[in-house]
Amino acid sequence: MLHIIFLFSLLFSSSHASVLDFCVADLMGPIGPAGYSCKKPAKVTADDFVFSGLGIAGNTSNLIKAAVTPAFDAQFPGVNGLGISMARLDLAADGVIPLHTHPGASEVLVVVQGSICAGFISSANTVYFKSLKTGDIMTFPQGLLHFQLNSGGSPALAFVSFSSANPGLQILDFALFANDFPSELIEKTTFLDDAQVKKLKAVLGGTG
Amino acid sequence: MLHIIFLFSLLFSSSHASVLDFCVADLMGPIGPAGYSCKKPAKVTADDFVFSGLGIAGNTSNLIKAAVTPAFDAQFPGVNGLGISMARLDLAADGVIPLHTHPGASEVLVVVQGSICAGFISSANTVYFKSLKTGDIMTFPQGLLHFQLNSGGSPALAFVSFSSANPGLQILDFALFANDFPSELIEKTTFLDDAQVKKLKAVLGGTG
Amino acid sequence: MLHIIFLFSLLFSSSHASVLDFCVADLMGPIGPAGYSCKKPAKVTADDFVFSGLGIAGNTSNLIKAAVTPAFDAQFPGVNGLGISMARLDLAADGVIPLHTHPGASEVLVVVQGSICAGFISSANTVYFKSLKTGDIMTFPQGLLHFQLNSGGSPALAFVSFSSANPGLQILDFALFANDFPSELIEKTTFLDDAQVKKLKAVLGGTG
Amino acid sequence: MLHIIFLFSLLFSSSHASVLDFCVADLMGPIGPAGYSCKKPAKVTADDFVFSGLGIAGNTSNLIKAAVTPAFDAQFPGVNGLGISMARLDLAADGVIPLHTHPGASEVLVVVQGSICAGFISSANTVYFKSLKTGDIMTFPQGLLHFQLNSGGSPALAFVSFSSANPGLQILDFALFANDFPSELIEKTTFLDDAQVKKLKAVLGGTG
Amino acid sequence: MLHIIFLFSLLFSSSHASVLDFCVADLMGPIGPAGYSCKKPAKVTADDFVFSGLGIAGNTSNLIKAAVTPAFDAQFPGVNGLGISMARLDLAADGVIPLHTHPGASEVLVVVQGSICAGFISSANTVYFKSLKTGDIMTFPQGLLHFQLNSGGSPALAFVSFSSANPGLQILDFALFANDFPSELIEKTTFLDDAQVKKLKAVLGGTG
Amino acid sequence: MLHIIFLFSLLFSSSHASVLDFCVADLMGPIGPAGYSCKKPAKVTADDFVFSGLGIAGNTSNLIKAAVTPAFDAQFPGVNGLGISMARLDLAADGVIPLHTHPGASEVLVVVQGSICAGFISSANTVYFKSLKTGDIMTFPQGLLHFQLNSGGSPALAFVSFSSANPGLQILDFALFANDFPSELIEKTTFLDDAQVKKLKAVLGGTG
Repeated sequence: MLHIIFLFSLLFSSSHASVLDFCVADLMGPIGPAGYSCKKPAKVTADDFVFSGLGIAGNTSNLIKAAVTPAFDAQFPGVNGLGISMARLDLAADGVIPLHTHPGASEVLVVVQGSICAGFISSANTVYFKSLKTGDIMTFPQGLLHFQLNSGGSPALAFVSFSSANPGLQILDFALFANDFPSELIEKTTFLDDAQVKKLKAVLGGTG
Repeated sequence: MLHIIFLFSLLFSSSHASVLDFCVADLMGPIGPAGYSCKKPAKVTADDFVFSGLGIAGNTSNLIKAAVTPAFDAQFPGVNGLGISMARLDLAADGVIPLHTHPGASEVLVVVQGSICAGFISSANTVYFKSLKTGDIMTFPQGLLHFQLNSGGSPALAFVSFSSANPGLQILDFALFANDFPSELIEKTTFLDDAQVKKLKAVLGGTG
Repeated sequence: MLHIIFLFSLLFSSSHASVLDFCVADLMGPIGPAGYSCKKPAKVTADDFVFSGLGIAGNTSNLIKAAVTPAFDAQFPGVNGLGISMARLDLAADGVIPLHTHPGASEVLVVVQGSICAGFISSANTVYFKSLKTGDIMTFPQGLLHFQLNSGGSPALAFVSFSSANPGLQILDFALFANDFPSELIEKTTFLDDAQVKKLKAVLGGTG
Repeated sequence: MLHIIFLFSLLFSSSHASVLDFCVADLMGPIGPAGYSCKKPAKVTADDFVFSGLGIAGNTSNLIKAAVTPAFDAQFPGVNGLGISMARLDLAADGVIPLHTHPGASEVLVVVQGSICAGFISSANTVYFKSLKTGDIMTFPQGLLHFQLNSGGSPALAFVSFSSANPGLQILDFALFANDFPSELIEKTTFLDDAQVKKLKAVLGGTG
Repeated sequence: MLHIIFLFSLLFSSSHASVLDFCVADLMGPIGPAGYSCKKPAKVTADDFVFSGLGIAGNTSNLIKAAVTPAFDAQFPGVNGLGISMARLDLAADGVIPLHTHPGASEVLVVVQGSICAGFISSANTVYFKSLKTGDIMTFPQGLLHFQLNSGGSPALAFVSFSSANPGLQILDFALFANDFPSELIEKTTFLDDAQVKKLKAVLGGTG
Repeated sequence: MLHIIFLFSLLFSSSHASVLDFCVADLMGPIGPAGYSCKKPAKVTADDFVFSGLGIAGNTSNLIKAAVTPAFDAQFPGVNGLGISMARLDLAADGVIPLHTHPGASEVLVVVQGSICAGFISSANTVYFKSLKTGDIMTFPQGLLHFQLNSGGSPALAFVSFSSANPGLQILDFALFANDFPSELIEKTTFLDDAQVKKLKAVLGGTG
């Protein structure tokens, strides 16, 4: 028996930290193109692989009557390097997650409560959308514009998963109107009217 | 205006079928290492990206008091090639999803109803497990043995997502005892007793 | 010497078609998530790796005073499976390539003639833009909204390369206004005014 | 001639450390999802790409009459980032490498001495096994349970290669019985009898 | 018990062919960038994962006194899509595997008999080479020129593994002198003398 | 409105540095297999994504009458992790870029001025070459020997792009003759004559 344990030790008790089956993010370490540095395996516990932040309803008392709560690698270090992550969508009545993209990931959504109208637009400019009831799932291919809105009269809840630990999130209105993107450039590159641009900049806090 | 439409046509109306943003599985076409062949884009509709099969509770009137309902590429052609898929877990009181692996994917689970004790074992033979309450999420790194069991007195429901459209599913007991794996080989490669092997083969329908 | 030739034959003259160093697209064959089927190696010639379509200036007599000429896998079968492709940008005076994304690729642009103001917006809603002169190159990370516009008084020419043989191209205005995306949904998911939406639909041929 | 050398210098003698063709592991540096940090190129020598540890027979004087000697990135820093690694299998008469998985890699085995019965089990619970003689090779797809046992009367030797520098190694018995995995959980998730679990825990040093 | 079998059936007995854990090459089917089409799972047997062709010594009665026997996907369909393959190197006394590259894979070599001097050249033009004895392993990073030669007085045998099922093999002398590459182009692009080029073309069967 | 801004803050103003859409190289930080460490997002500006070094003609007053100016990650930190990079080729009359490979990337070339004869050699030893005129593009599959030479009487200019931020560059003559690769080893592994090897070593500064 000692021999088997000896074999076991030989295989796994190297003096060097080992690149193991997972790489829980060390949020304070250097970051590379593949993600965060790994927390030392000896300090990893079960808690690193569990995240409770999606158990709390997001605050939907806002203009869009909706909230997105991410569990990406920056919030949930356990998914670093695993090619997967999640987020929670809360949509009050009439709530909407505005048109947005995830630059680095495909998405799948499951409706847990209420009903949601969701859709995306392809490179061929075809719009694919459908009203989803509780239990339905829908997939959104990588990098395409998509949206979700509450299509029932009561609050809706969905969980979305991504094919990346760091899918990114580019909300169209925020990208255009919630920063210092010069209005002249916005207008030239979107053909939106000046009044429209300025109106939305005022709502979303944009300047320039 | 005609000119813009002309540009538009030039870009997207090629006479050749285009490799586009998605590749909805043509389940009848040839399969390659990266997945199924793509359905012709012209025949793709919003329905291809929606799956309702996870809206129905699995039948838990069985020995494990649990059910796994997959939405992998073979069931949900819309995820083919997207690097993501889902499944639904139903666990009646005392239900258990036995130890299993997904050979080609990492997983993230969200508890939607009830409470679930879930865990996995690393290459270093460390066991990471925790009791999850509704809204908690947990991640299971690629290829490692893991399990889920109902840790409350009432039915539990969870959705799991995978970092592959075809994660695979190898349930340990089925892999060992639900086929024609010769008992002698099982015993030599697992150190299980002959009586134990034969008992479980009888339950799970194994031969040899 | 015969022996060396024998070795040579042994290695390379298999009776089976070989999966070789390249996979020139057979545009008529089945398509999979990784790209088109491969043309038989025996039928491949040097011409398959050369494309002359980018040598011709695009027609910029249109509303945007610009043209994009793609050399993606559908146009240039030689890049199928190689993870690279190109396009040509022609911008007449005041020409603009409107805000767009490539869902599946990063891009690098080189200015060959004239000067171009180019920029992109990150997930953090920061706008990065700069005026580029002839010989400058700029990179646009995968999946992010970006634009190019002529910032000189004379025609500009640029070549762009992509980290995919099939980068996709989603032009924001076309995605919103050049299809049957219902105006009500557009307005709810973008906060654009109804008048604005209808005006641009009229220009771009959108319905609904 | 000086000019050519000048060109040469220009290309390769940058003042910044360059990300080059290889990334020999700096076992003391930070680790990320893609592997160890790279040793500075100037300190890399031919010895970094050579490993002699597989030239020594593993000690098979143990219960399984077998030994696995890994040359993964932690032991053989030269393979870091290259997507390949090796191990040596020594099997005395009646030796066995128990059922195990490599969570992150496919494997190919070559029998160098003796004969070995090897097999794996698929997600469809099909068992594929065969007796291999010297010179035979066998492949084991990623993440699936597999085993090797000496099927001759004399010592056997094999080398195995992996499609990852860090394939991981999860030996079923060690994962179940050589740690603090609570017996109750093991029994619930494997259907093994309590006596069986306790017996193997005693042999392998498990607690709980 | 019937219930468990029912669950089992539900999961695995779909009427559609499933994209499973492996994709044994159907050498007659279409080929894509990711490899050959998959043989139908129902027709796959253990023999598909075993290859005996490397058990036979290659014929070294040739100019290079050496032989390479590949077990790539075209010869060994079981590795298709798995990201791994092998080859056997036989080197008689004074045998040499001339300078060559594998365009799409890193390599690891294990010396099984005799001693071999092996080396590679980096992008920085550094030569890394070493004499290897039986049991030593050496790695060759992807795409770099490398060689192996018998450095003992007796026959040597090695097995090499690759990080691709289709690593490719470009032997420098064959690439230059065993085809119709015009001598003038060779000379201009290599600076070799005309006499040298013509001499080696004569040996290797080149024309032009 | 404050509520929307609150949502916005919640999503993007985490106290932890975020793994974002890009990873501009911090050339002083640790390097891993996937590339350089990322510069802190707060310090990134538009200038990081622009490179002007390709706007300057390379010095072609050398033996090859040509120059390669790279914009790889080490020169152009903005492409780090993006899977793309560029280089500029200047060819004076009779200039030539000698046979070379990029170990880790496919390439596409666009002729911007003059005419260029370019070609590559496959693993099957087939030579594919063609004379390209201004505006033509050609692709060179990963890892294969290829060359470019001025086929007109006037200076030629081309830009090449790569499917990697760090494609590597191995020029055959430099790999063989511009280092300390022992002549005896060169001759044994290339069959070149001793006089030829020594002549080129003298030109290129090689020793040994």
